[in-house]
Amino acid sequence: MYTDRFGTLVQKLRLLPSVGSKSAQRMALHLLMRQRTGALELAQALQEAIEHIHECSICHSLTEHEICDICQDTERDDGLLCVVESPADVFAIEQSGSFKGKYHVLHGHLSPLDGIGPEEVGIPYLVQRLSQGQIREVILATNATVEGQATAHYLVESCKHLPIKITRIAQGVPQGGELEYVDSHTLHQALTHRLPLNQSS
Amino acid sequence: MYTDRFGTLVQKLRLLPSVGSKSAQRMALHLLMRQRTGALELAQALQEAIEHIHECSICHSLTEHEICDICQDTERDDGLLCVVESPADVFAIEQSGSFKGKYHVLHGHLSPLDGIGPEEVGIPYLVQRLSQGQIREVILATNATVEGQATAHYLVESCKHLPIKITRIAQGVPQGGELEYVDSHTLHQALTHRLPLNQSS
Repeated sequence: MYTDRFGTLVQKLRLLPSVGSKSAQRMALHLLMRQRTGALELAQALQEAIEHIHECSICHSLTEHEICDICQDTERDDGLLCVVESPADVFAIEQSGSFKGKYHVLHGHLSPLDGIGPEEVGIPYLVQRLSQGQIREVILATNATVEGQATAHYLVESCKHLPIKITRIAQGVPQGGELEYVDSHTLHQALTHRLPLNQSS
Repeated sequence: MYTDRFGTLVQKLRLLPSVGSKSAQRMALHLLMRQRTGALELAQALQEAIEHIHECSICHSLTEHEICDICQDTERDDGLLCVVESPADVFAIEQSGSFKGKYHVLHGHLSPLDGIGPEEVGIPYLVQRLSQGQIREVILATNATVEGQATAHYLVESCKHLPIKITRIAQGVPQGGELEYVDSHTLHQALTHRLPLNQSS
């Protein structure tokens, strides 16, 4: 029913995350019927991205150069290192504009059942980076999921021989969060780590 | 924050239907981190599809040849023509395996407010095809939306001078549909066009 090349296109579009066969067919038809020039531009953008974008040799985020812009930035604090699970987290934190140190991107999180241990996640390389003595505080900003928490816990164990302050990003009620819809674990964290608002508290 | 080529890739991925900036970023990262070979294969599939897939010169569905497989199929009934809004509808009907005639694909539906009239939808070409005398019945299978209904109505008016039987696909309760969740317009249609189940009814 499909032509060969249409079938191939649908199959390759399914490589995209969260794209099933129906969505892939819809995308293929949309490109062929309404975005033929755009489809060629997308093809070229894909080729150029794969050819030129790779991991930064220092922080493992994505860059088009040997070392990424953030690692090269001399105005950022070299003593403060934020550890995240993926380049997407670097983008998210940068968008918040609230961090002016450097980053270290792990390859995801520990997941022993999937055979993903400290080596696969790149923890030995991180510990080696921390051992060089330039960093005074490491902020663990892995996700607040079970795996992210386990990874943060493992990192604390791995770094406890180093003279470095280790912190974890705060957990609590998100901005705009209505208490009645916040899960009980989050509420527990928010109450346990409540902050003083006046002198005498 | 993004590298140039990463930004371009995200922007081009947004050309896909239902893909916003967050999804596009996620797709770009997924391809760069986990599907580098797949990304190149997708790029090639896009280029090949755009280069080789175009409209069938008879039915306006998509094909890699001058005339599509369905139009070329001599075992299908040339006297029965099913009119749909897009090639996706041809796929859907073919998947149902319940039609053995030929197709005619319009360019969407009438939408006067968007400047899409009979010419843009390709109705004159359809009327010309029907005037050649080979077709004895035309099945209007435009969508059961307001626009699809309006397009079907316009087609009936455009074809009434021709000695051709015009039918519309049935509307009613879908297979597996529970009555309490079916909208009232559909229920109205289902009751109005109820079918006799025994001789005396």
